[in-house]
Amino acid sequence: MLTVISYDIKSDTRRTKIYKALKDYGDWVQYSVFECDLKEQELLKLRHRLDTLLNKEEGDSIRYYHLCAECCRKIERDGGTMPKDLSTVIVKKQR
Amino acid sequence: MLTVISYDIKSDTRRTKIYKALKDYGDWVQYSVFECDLKEQELLKLRHRLDTLLNKEEGDSIRYYHLCAECCRKIERDGGTMPKDLSTVIVKKQR
Repeated sequence: MLTVISYDIKSDTRRTKIYKALKDYGDWVQYSVFECDLKEQELLKLRHRLDTLLNKEEGDSIRYYHLCAECCRKIERDGGTMPKDLSTVIVKKQR
Repeated sequence: MLTVISYDIKSDTRRTKIYKALKDYGDWVQYSVFECDLKEQELLKLRHRLDTLLNKEEGDSIRYYHLCAECCRKIERDGGTMPKDLSTVIVKKQR
């Protein structure tokens, strides 16, 4: 399942930590937006990790948009990187 | 239909113009993310307007995530504003 994760982090240090944590799980598509193809277990683990890095009193926030296959196909963009195309599977030739 | 619009704009002037354009159409939920409940026609008009404000050569980008009712119900967040709840309709008492 594709999850779009957008974050609003008030301090540069915390934002860098959040960015580094997300880098292990998905594609950085905009300054504060990642697209992550995650299993349920991975999402729980990631969400717990990110939650520990947040300072909600200072106004930090993270939003999780879980997209079904149909909503994934409807992603549109002007400029920036191509949306992740989950419908194509790259089959590596056996040598 | 709820559309999540996230933008990455390199110049403050253009970003302000994009913000002002989006303010007419939906809720500002994070620094560069809006949630807009739009009809097809409104989306086309908004997208055209935003496209004219972009400078793609400088790296500006906008992403549109169109969420079905089921994906709307699954929006999650840590910190920040409540996701738009489209299932509740506020009925004004007739006086």
